[in-house]
Amino acid sequence: MDNLRIIEVKRSVFEENDKDAERLRKELKERGIFLLNLMSSPGSGKTTTLIKTINLLKDKLNIAVMEADIDSDTDAKKILEGTGVQTIQIHTGGMCHLDADMTRQGIRSLDLEKVDLVILENVGNLVCPAEFDTGASKNCMILSVPEGDDKPLKYPLMFSICDLVLINKTDVAPYFDFDFDKCEQYIKMRNKNAKILSICAKTGEGIDEFAMWLKEQVDIQKGGK
Amino acid sequence: MDNLRIIEVKRSVFEENDKDAERLRKELKERGIFLLNLMSSPGSGKTTTLIKTINLLKDKLNIAVMEADIDSDTDAKKILEGTGVQTIQIHTGGMCHLDADMTRQGIRSLDLEKVDLVILENVGNLVCPAEFDTGASKNCMILSVPEGDDKPLKYPLMFSICDLVLINKTDVAPYFDFDFDKCEQYIKMRNKNAKILSICAKTGEGIDEFAMWLKEQVDIQKGGK
Repeated sequence: MDNLRIIEVKRSVFEENDKDAERLRKELKERGIFLLNLMSSPGSGKTTTLIKTINLLKDKLNIAVMEADIDSDTDAKKILEGTGVQTIQIHTGGMCHLDADMTRQGIRSLDLEKVDLVILENVGNLVCPAEFDTGASKNCMILSVPEGDDKPLKYPLMFSICDLVLINKTDVAPYFDFDFDKCEQYIKMRNKNAKILSICAKTGEGIDEFAMWLKEQVDIQKGGK
Repeated sequence: MDNLRIIEVKRSVFEENDKDAERLRKELKERGIFLLNLMSSPGSGKTTTLIKTINLLKDKLNIAVMEADIDSDTDAKKILEGTGVQTIQIHTGGMCHLDADMTRQGIRSLDLEKVDLVILENVGNLVCPAEFDTGASKNCMILSVPEGDDKPLKYPLMFSICDLVLINKTDVAPYFDFDFDKCEQYIKMRNKNAKILSICAKTGEGIDEFAMWLKEQVDIQKGGK
């Protein structure tokens, strides 16, 4: 009974959140701001990926970062130290995801003058963040090799809502049973339009391709304003 | 506003769930059944750890396993093939955790005759499962080396509610910047009573210690019935 009640409440929240997310997406587009929502499991390499990517892009784009966590400010510190771009830490008060309103609260606390790209590093979680549209222009997720190639089977929604899936930590692939072809097949099963890139944030492999994709998306949105 | 509303609803559910979990814990204890709730991030090695552990214990204890996932039955199949013990797959219908009532539904579908130990492999998620008492006798979590030593800082509740933390995938420690001392210190910061064991489910290292701990807990509960 408890279970059913939770689902119903979530649904009614979803309807409002979806509308709110659409409003936020439209507002941001009108102001020329691209919002990337980056999701993954805990510890799959979001922060390291962002540092490398931002350093490739920060001369071409004015970037701001919002780090969402339940507690701690370690990731925001790392981004600030590693890139120097405007960074804030959002504490979710125990919440397992960000919705559009929480995302808006974060964005409002940024200095948006001249900002082209806001990157939201969502809470490390493959379930709940997928259920709440943040108002992002594009959704991207990281699956790291140590997590295993079967994750699209177990967490279908996350893979189905992402425009781009980054497969990270390819440097340790020899030590894990990770089948890249099988993984790609599972991802395409959930989302045939998803773009898939293999990267290694630690060594920098593939980061240029991710940066290029991101720059292109920002340009497309600006062009289509 | 959406955000606040969700938190309120969760709280009222929590109160009911806590009572329900206590009821379930008491019922199971009276029937001589120990329930272990095993949690972790996606892909940190719950299923492999369980297979190795169950094979060490299945001659001493009558074991049943409940695999919880949003979708797929890959883990239940692996457990069944790898151990031969009674196994069911619970699909959570998109839910990011199991509460006591969902756990009870799973337990009711098991043949409990002679069962000493039921192991629940919860949904791979470091946030939500920590918020819902399943009625388990003990909570255990796995943190895998590739996820990083800082997870107790970011996911405080999960570490604070676990009786045992298993640090898994120690075989790949040379390829990751994982500081075991620092990690232990962070875990103790969240929960000074947590027992910590280093294991490698792949090679079997440390699994005997985990099995011994689990057997001990089952015996203690039986003795205290």
